[in-house]
Amino acid sequence: MIRCAVIGASGYTGVELAALIARHPQLELGKVYVSAASVDGGKQLSQLHGRFLGLLDLPVTPLTDDELAQVGKQHDLVFLATEHQVSTQLAPTLLAQGAVVMDLSGGFRFADAEVYPKFYGFEHEQPELLKKAVYGLAEWNADAVKTADLVAVPGCYPTASLTALKPLQEAGLLDDVQYPVINAVSGVSGAGRKASMTNSFCEVSLHPYGVLGHRHQPEISDQLGRDVIFTPHLGNFPRGIVATVTVKLAQGVTAEQVSQAYHKAYDSSSCVRLYDEMGQTPSIKNVVNTCHVDIGWKVDEASGHAVLIAAEDNLLKGAAGQAIQCANLRFGLIDFPFESGAAL
Amino acid sequence: MIRCAVIGASGYTGVELAALIARHPQLELGKVYVSAASVDGGKQLSQLHGRFLGLLDLPVTPLTDDELAQVGKQHDLVFLATEHQVSTQLAPTLLAQGAVVMDLSGGFRFADAEVYPKFYGFEHEQPELLKKAVYGLAEWNADAVKTADLVAVPGCYPTASLTALKPLQEAGLLDDVQYPVINAVSGVSGAGRKASMTNSFCEVSLHPYGVLGHRHQPEISDQLGRDVIFTPHLGNFPRGIVATVTVKLAQGVTAEQVSQAYHKAYDSSSCVRLYDEMGQTPSIKNVVNTCHVDIGWKVDEASGHAVLIAAEDNLLKGAAGQAIQCANLRFGLIDFPFESGAAL
Amino acid sequence: MIRCAVIGASGYTGVELAALIARHPQLELGKVYVSAASVDGGKQLSQLHGRFLGLLDLPVTPLTDDELAQVGKQHDLVFLATEHQVSTQLAPTLLAQGAVVMDLSGGFRFADAEVYPKFYGFEHEQPELLKKAVYGLAEWNADAVKTADLVAVPGCYPTASLTALKPLQEAGLLDDVQYPVINAVSGVSGAGRKASMTNSFCEVSLHPYGVLGHRHQPEISDQLGRDVIFTPHLGNFPRGIVATVTVKLAQGVTAEQVSQAYHKAYDSSSCVRLYDEMGQTPSIKNVVNTCHVDIGWKVDEASGHAVLIAAEDNLLKGAAGQAIQCANLRFGLIDFPFESGAAL
Amino acid sequence: MIRCAVIGASGYTGVELAALIARHPQLELGKVYVSAASVDGGKQLSQLHGRFLGLLDLPVTPLTDDELAQVGKQHDLVFLATEHQVSTQLAPTLLAQGAVVMDLSGGFRFADAEVYPKFYGFEHEQPELLKKAVYGLAEWNADAVKTADLVAVPGCYPTASLTALKPLQEAGLLDDVQYPVINAVSGVSGAGRKASMTNSFCEVSLHPYGVLGHRHQPEISDQLGRDVIFTPHLGNFPRGIVATVTVKLAQGVTAEQVSQAYHKAYDSSSCVRLYDEMGQTPSIKNVVNTCHVDIGWKVDEASGHAVLIAAEDNLLKGAAGQAIQCANLRFGLIDFPFESGAAL
Repeated sequence: MIRCAVIGASGYTGVELAALIARHPQLELGKVYVSAASVDGGKQLSQLHGRFLGLLDLPVTPLTDDELAQVGKQHDLVFLATEHQVSTQLAPTLLAQGAVVMDLSGGFRFADAEVYPKFYGFEHEQPELLKKAVYGLAEWNADAVKTADLVAVPGCYPTASLTALKPLQEAGLLDDVQYPVINAVSGVSGAGRKASMTNSFCEVSLHPYGVLGHRHQPEISDQLGRDVIFTPHLGNFPRGIVATVTVKLAQGVTAEQVSQAYHKAYDSSSCVRLYDEMGQTPSIKNVVNTCHVDIGWKVDEASGHAVLIAAEDNLLKGAAGQAIQCANLRFGLIDFPFESGAAL
Repeated sequence: MIRCAVIGASGYTGVELAALIARHPQLELGKVYVSAASVDGGKQLSQLHGRFLGLLDLPVTPLTDDELAQVGKQHDLVFLATEHQVSTQLAPTLLAQGAVVMDLSGGFRFADAEVYPKFYGFEHEQPELLKKAVYGLAEWNADAVKTADLVAVPGCYPTASLTALKPLQEAGLLDDVQYPVINAVSGVSGAGRKASMTNSFCEVSLHPYGVLGHRHQPEISDQLGRDVIFTPHLGNFPRGIVATVTVKLAQGVTAEQVSQAYHKAYDSSSCVRLYDEMGQTPSIKNVVNTCHVDIGWKVDEASGHAVLIAAEDNLLKGAAGQAIQCANLRFGLIDFPFESGAAL
Repeated sequence: MIRCAVIGASGYTGVELAALIARHPQLELGKVYVSAASVDGGKQLSQLHGRFLGLLDLPVTPLTDDELAQVGKQHDLVFLATEHQVSTQLAPTLLAQGAVVMDLSGGFRFADAEVYPKFYGFEHEQPELLKKAVYGLAEWNADAVKTADLVAVPGCYPTASLTALKPLQEAGLLDDVQYPVINAVSGVSGAGRKASMTNSFCEVSLHPYGVLGHRHQPEISDQLGRDVIFTPHLGNFPRGIVATVTVKLAQGVTAEQVSQAYHKAYDSSSCVRLYDEMGQTPSIKNVVNTCHVDIGWKVDEASGHAVLIAAEDNLLKGAAGQAIQCANLRFGLIDFPFESGAAL
Repeated sequence: MIRCAVIGASGYTGVELAALIARHPQLELGKVYVSAASVDGGKQLSQLHGRFLGLLDLPVTPLTDDELAQVGKQHDLVFLATEHQVSTQLAPTLLAQGAVVMDLSGGFRFADAEVYPKFYGFEHEQPELLKKAVYGLAEWNADAVKTADLVAVPGCYPTASLTALKPLQEAGLLDDVQYPVINAVSGVSGAGRKASMTNSFCEVSLHPYGVLGHRHQPEISDQLGRDVIFTPHLGNFPRGIVATVTVKLAQGVTAEQVSQAYHKAYDSSSCVRLYDEMGQTPSIKNVVNTCHVDIGWKVDEASGHAVLIAAEDNLLKGAAGQAIQCANLRFGLIDFPFESGAAL
């Protein structure tokens, strides 16, 4: 049994992590933490998230200095579901204590520290750790994850976008000049668990945000190796992401080649499901509450364009689920939890 | 033209008031205010509520002491969409300035000042004004409203509940002993425009609240003249209320008598619509964005029970619309705005 | 391994059954059927319910006469997720073939055949089977279920209502005269998987239906042993039920007695969760996608009333989940699947 | 007063038309029709759409041959909210009777009859009328509409897409080679009022459809004068469209030029609202139940791309509202109904 801690357990991603660990036959849930200043410290996790009453009745521990001095010694694996900068501050301590760290923030997703002031608003103080961190896109970086001590779990939008784009980019099927255009809609949980007017029930309504300036744009570009246009939207549902990607194909690329690229990339994956037939397109309802990412596509050979669709649960394949995938790879565990829950 | 001010214009009820006034052919929208401390002071109303861009592009004025010294002199009619205690503090000043006051808070809904410490958490300092205030349930207190200088516009739940119950109670059709049981579900806008975890999109889900202790229970009882059990619920929609009321009828009361009581009470009302046939029950979608309250009922003569249904828009018939109804009565205006908007 | 069939697998309850069986370590999913006339016959179950792509990729078999002749021989346990009258026609054959039958319809929920013409619109042709069938309210009829060959799995509303009411009724805490008043709101999946204007996205809106005439009223009354008033409502969400029950208590009953009755009834249950503190009331979001039923209550000793709240997933504890509970009891299996899935 | 008929009044667009006509001070609502075979014939319009109880209590007349022989004689203006092919069959008769016809279907949107077999599934039998019909994009074709007897009211997606794109295309600001990429999400009412599994409440979930083959793609291309990639999505809300358009700008185009193009095109429009500041992006909630189309944009001069956003109510500016706009132009009426209703 691998003993796990979750720091930042009061949020939506944090409690998903706790729930997945608790159900995983080879992981053991140790302590769960919130920041020392949080009003949630000392409460039961199930008090914050009523759904887990009777299931996750463990206390949420304030991460005091004394606690922090022990976390990486008491646990084999620490998940960070914390703010970006907080992750960069915690990771060195935890690594020094001997723990493996899975960071779900953006704190270690770029090799280049110069991204941080521009897109994250802070100077990164661990540039050497940035170089050691492995980007945990599980289907593409499995080998590196297997030996990594610090995994930067990808962002929710990048996971969907890259899962759709990488097979075509890697196979050389995309036009070199025209930028892939990514439009994505996310459920409100992507904004985290906090009181704000933006997340207020009566204010939520479908609209784009962060136009031409969202921090997931450089993440996608960095991992894809080319520029993209990425426009995120807030949708009026709690969880799930649909990303619709429009690409110009390289000269002469056929629908068959596109199909082959996807099957080659994902036929052995337990997590990615392919929709060859566009009669049924990937949809929020088919992936929510699961660790699947569903991929569909359609090619117009005449004009040389393709539309690619990816759907995932932003909190699972887009966050906690992929973190567990990485933990499975790192510790050689079974392929949990790629199963589906209930039907609607 | 009657010149109107709205105090508390940044909230959902306040902006509805401003919009109704602006469209009313006999009302003129003067200034709209927020509290002097509000972060919204100085913004455009349409900046706070994007829907009104180009339509309500007027500034939201901070209600400083200097401003307050003029409000009731510059306007014939002042609507208070403020916190309960704030209303009790503002009303005397405005009345002394010669304005008519429509208070949408609970600050003047009870003749008895002793209700306030228990249900509203403050000592009422205007007990004499409480006695002068008229409860503005428009279909029942029209005559008193016509001459009132201070109208206590009813709460959203009491409006729905009383509209359903009063015709039967006044006609002596209800059993004396058994309490009417009111279950109601309200949209989230009923909680006001503010950032809170309770109103947060991902936290909203159908559930009861304020069980056996909500402040609208004494308001309903007081106006009905008898005890009731009232259980409010939060629903996962932005606006609208459905109240379902179960009553024991007096011995021998027939379905025909119930029907007659409703038609006698409301056949001449432009605001109340009666559903004789329960094939189509009152429903949120039929009343939202309108000033209607829809009433349906069904009687089981065998067991002597009836189920009464009321549906309304909590922000309109349950607040701003009824305030305008009272203004129409008070100033002898046309029967605006009892029309319906768009279809879904 | 107990080999299971599901008849009526294309519907929402049917596919939940298939999914629960597939995940249950001691149940084996055999064939899944639809009626011989269904357009869904021959398709993959995962084609009808895209969520189960890769997970339930088995064909939906048309239930021809030839197939029917084998179902109860090829399977130990048959779940009927069929129309009421169809269940009454299928059950005798399946029982004669030696299978245990769990019927999720209303076809065997009443000992008295005379209920059927009035509330179900058909004459029941198996009055002797009605007397043998066991009502599968798992927390209350466990002993009878353990030896039953035909289990009538309770309706969704009755499960919620009876779980809230029976502890107080059995303990003699309710007033004898006044009817318990049950108001419940159900998600749209309760109406089944079919195209209809009523279920059409743009038509759905909170409203009551079946007022004073719903077929779950006699079911609740029959199992409770007394008359009730039951008013169901359609809510604008896909799954879940909240039932709010108002009762007059017997003379002198205390809050403490009510609490003790609940704890006595359910402290050993893995499925029922009690909310002693009304600060957190039972809510759709805490039970959806789980087999829990959450119970909260509040007592007003002064007036002698109590409000009881029950929340459940209508498709799980209200249907498929309770059917699996009954299967566990009948075959002495582990206490699966009373765990929770994801957090929102 | 211009006397108006609506054919196809039972649908969502039809009833919106009836409601707008009834409120318009210079239009008079005559008869409203459904097809002779419809089950809705003979019912009250307010029975089909409960929202209009007391407001639109007029009968829905079956359009028999006898009725059809009179429609264009009894009315000055006939709105067709009918199926595409039905419109093509009705229009010649109505025009011959002397009525002006506003067709809300796609039946007359293309000058070239050859589009119809491919994208609409039928041979167009009125090629000469196709050439006479005026495409009613009100802000761009006002002069032609003023004298047209047959107006093809634009589709919902084309209205949003063209309103965003035409100012830049007409000003020569777009790159000639790269296709504009349009992603749009529509509320479910866009699929019409009918029972279907696709529209069924529990089946609706955000997903793309009609990928690279939707019939609004040629409509947009035809009116814009160049190819586009258009991907529509179904969203989980009843009404509204957000279209997000990504374009490559012509060499050296500045943000200032883009802004000027929009202001030049729309500063005098009562219907189009411009969002210069992307802090507040166009959003469903700001336009639903209104005839506005809101436009926002952002330019990245470095890479030479722009993202354009359009939001509208698909049933109003995207259908019935624009039809009334065209009627106002055609008959020289006031600028009704470009006002907003309630706030949420």
